[in-house]
Amino acid sequence: MSARADKLMTMSQAPDSAVRTYIEQHRAAFLDDLAEWLRIPSVSAQPDHAADVRRSADWLAAKLRETGFPTVEVWATPGAPAVFAEWPADDPAAPTVLVYGHHDVQPAAREDGWDSDPFEPVVRGNRLHARGAADDKGQVFFHTLGVRAHLATTGRTAPAVHLKMLVEGEEESGSVHFRSLVEEHADRLAADAVIVSDTGMWAGDTPTVCTGMRGLAECEIQFHGPDQDIHSGSFGGAVPNPATAVARLVAALHDEHARVTIPGFYDGVTEPTDRERALLAELPFDEEQWLRTAKSYATHGEAGHTTLERVWTRPTAEVNGIGGGYQGPGSKTIVPASAMVKLSFRLVAGQDPDHIEKIVRDWTATRVPAGIRYAITFAAATRPCLTPLDHPALQSVVRAMSRAFDKRVRYTREGGSGPAADLQDVLGAPVLFLGISVPSDGWHAPNEKVEIDLLLKGVETTAYLWGDLAESWRHES
Amino acid sequence: MSARADKLMTMSQAPDSAVRTYIEQHRAAFLDDLAEWLRIPSVSAQPDHAADVRRSADWLAAKLRETGFPTVEVWATPGAPAVFAEWPADDPAAPTVLVYGHHDVQPAAREDGWDSDPFEPVVRGNRLHARGAADDKGQVFFHTLGVRAHLATTGRTAPAVHLKMLVEGEEESGSVHFRSLVEEHADRLAADAVIVSDTGMWAGDTPTVCTGMRGLAECEIQFHGPDQDIHSGSFGGAVPNPATAVARLVAALHDEHARVTIPGFYDGVTEPTDRERALLAELPFDEEQWLRTAKSYATHGEAGHTTLERVWTRPTAEVNGIGGGYQGPGSKTIVPASAMVKLSFRLVAGQDPDHIEKIVRDWTATRVPAGIRYAITFAAATRPCLTPLDHPALQSVVRAMSRAFDKRVRYTREGGSGPAADLQDVLGAPVLFLGISVPSDGWHAPNEKVEIDLLLKGVETTAYLWGDLAESWRHES
Repeated sequence: MSARADKLMTMSQAPDSAVRTYIEQHRAAFLDDLAEWLRIPSVSAQPDHAADVRRSADWLAAKLRETGFPTVEVWATPGAPAVFAEWPADDPAAPTVLVYGHHDVQPAAREDGWDSDPFEPVVRGNRLHARGAADDKGQVFFHTLGVRAHLATTGRTAPAVHLKMLVEGEEESGSVHFRSLVEEHADRLAADAVIVSDTGMWAGDTPTVCTGMRGLAECEIQFHGPDQDIHSGSFGGAVPNPATAVARLVAALHDEHARVTIPGFYDGVTEPTDRERALLAELPFDEEQWLRTAKSYATHGEAGHTTLERVWTRPTAEVNGIGGGYQGPGSKTIVPASAMVKLSFRLVAGQDPDHIEKIVRDWTATRVPAGIRYAITFAAATRPCLTPLDHPALQSVVRAMSRAFDKRVRYTREGGSGPAADLQDVLGAPVLFLGISVPSDGWHAPNEKVEIDLLLKGVETTAYLWGDLAESWRHES
Repeated sequence: MSARADKLMTMSQAPDSAVRTYIEQHRAAFLDDLAEWLRIPSVSAQPDHAADVRRSADWLAAKLRETGFPTVEVWATPGAPAVFAEWPADDPAAPTVLVYGHHDVQPAAREDGWDSDPFEPVVRGNRLHARGAADDKGQVFFHTLGVRAHLATTGRTAPAVHLKMLVEGEEESGSVHFRSLVEEHADRLAADAVIVSDTGMWAGDTPTVCTGMRGLAECEIQFHGPDQDIHSGSFGGAVPNPATAVARLVAALHDEHARVTIPGFYDGVTEPTDRERALLAELPFDEEQWLRTAKSYATHGEAGHTTLERVWTRPTAEVNGIGGGYQGPGSKTIVPASAMVKLSFRLVAGQDPDHIEKIVRDWTATRVPAGIRYAITFAAATRPCLTPLDHPALQSVVRAMSRAFDKRVRYTREGGSGPAADLQDVLGAPVLFLGISVPSDGWHAPNEKVEIDLLLKGVETTAYLWGDLAESWRHES
């Protein structure tokens, strides 16, 4: 840490002991409140829980008002409602931060393998078990006690930053209305930085901050051969087979180094810097354990990159589904009428989904055999996002987290793609990821839990963060 | 035709006019009888027609007894019954011929697009419409009047050859018990030649004889990657994808000349002779029309061969089905747990299905990426069959047909594979194909029909055939 950063850490910050004392005093009430929220089965994917999702939004809105947010609104969408809250700083020049999370949860039922009712929170030792405990109610909720600790221990009446929160209700069912919601309210949501609290960290003893997510472009390519399935004895070997043609297209996607061969695919890719690669290499990565998590039997990917680089920093072309002809039991001697492949491309910073769509279309067009007709359709894409390591807001998150955990904070990225990219896109603000969940928390799985001490470290991190951010970003800008 | 063949044609043969008169005299009764048989809906694929299939066998058995066969038996199988009939020649040294056909039919319903009840035969001009009219009851049935014309016009009391017939009841449902039936009764079925009447000829004005069928080896190859579908964001690009691996396997099946690349695949292949290629080239082949029949938009196949050579004389590797991962609407960002491909290999004379299975297994084994587990299963194979152009029995068929049609008879082959190969295999006899059906007869389709004048040419052909065969083969052996 630079001398300047050390200096920043001393400015206008509450002493750590005062924050910790405050959190300890309010811990029981905080956990009771969270448990109350977790009892609401806000399952957005199940229509019969629509009323519960609305109740969850109302519950959160009331709690944010109680926390002190002067403006709290429940925003309707054609689907489930989102909650918006705003708490301006006293200083109009303070930076504006938008916290993103979601209040809906994955489906859960006792018979899926839960040891107790998924919507009746249970504390076992350091763990709070309930659907949504980690994903994402717990991580949204630590911001409420965090901002109160920030105020109480600094004597402020308003946060050091203009604080906004947007907590959507459809994340677990595809965030289908999220982008239009953000576009509609872009002026209310305007921010200098977005902090996403819907992710995790490397491990309980390895606090990390995530600096980016991959984007996503998806398409389906249909190849049509004969007008109907035809007899492979009468015609096989003399007409083009669309299943063979799709297979040859897919086989041509990667070269022998597992690099994507589509011309222009790597155009503009932001390569990880040597420092980033070195930082990733510092993570205590156990490939055998990673393979167990991947339920896979070997690593395989782009030559010249480690597994973590492959999933976090490299673009990919992946077959999600392939199909054509007869797939039932036994055999059927046909030349199939058609075949298709569903491809997804994970994108990294510097790649433009529109460019990817164009080059995939061009590449496909040149590879369709005579006599095969084809169609290619793209779904809405998600852009990649990446915050540079030296971004001042990122450095604030790292410092705040490092104080809370009393440990060096390391860097990760996220291989998946998410609605956070819409915020970056529409609001033009960098996206930072502050999460305290750990891989064992069981997102989307039975017995989901959150580690209570990590949850309180989340509270503590935000108790430091807003002051640090206001100070350092003011100094930087 | 050689001078010797000309000489053979004059020996012990009924004069053509006598045969034609006999057929004309019995034509009405013959068509009435056939219509009676066609009224029995012997659909072997539909369990509720099992009694009809048995009734069809009994009906045929009675008719063969009435025709004069001294031995007629209905042979039970675990499925539908077959009919066996035997009529020894007076001369114990005469060759033995086994006629093969089937008495079961494809499903048919008025609402499939029939202009009349498929099981109520209708004559419209020269056409007899009914399910089974061409496939295969009509073509089995012409043998009954044929052998009677042979006897009546030569004054014989027994056919010139030892005549056997085997008419199975499961051809339209996969001939599942056929091979074991033939093995069980191999001694009763023993023959010097098999004549299959379950095929067609080139066109009404182009009589042809088919000299061979391709064989068939079929397999399914399963590739297993992760133990379950895994998230393509978290793991994509860093583990092997079984759908990609299957696609790469399929893509490697053929080289840029559309030749099969599996080492040893062409081992032993009986190349068509220059004469055979010249004879095939003489057929009035219209590629545009063939493409319409194939419902396809281009020809494609092994370099250096015409379309007819490709489907009749060349072995193939064809994808009948491919599948893996998500194939529903929209998208699912997964690395699939598994993928599979169903392949069929059409085989030609000189290829051994056991060898093909071995080399496909070996080739697959060398192409499975690390981290992919695989399984490959082969179905029961069908051997190819091919009768040399100069085989005496084939020359008899050509001469008999040529007399009946008053035209030069040309040669075809069959690209498909059928149970006839089991007869060749088990009985060790060459298989000849004598069929009078034309492509427009609508096998397996609505409004199936047979051309009555061609049906009677079938009668006439067999009226000449047994005498010719007995004479010429005796001379040759």
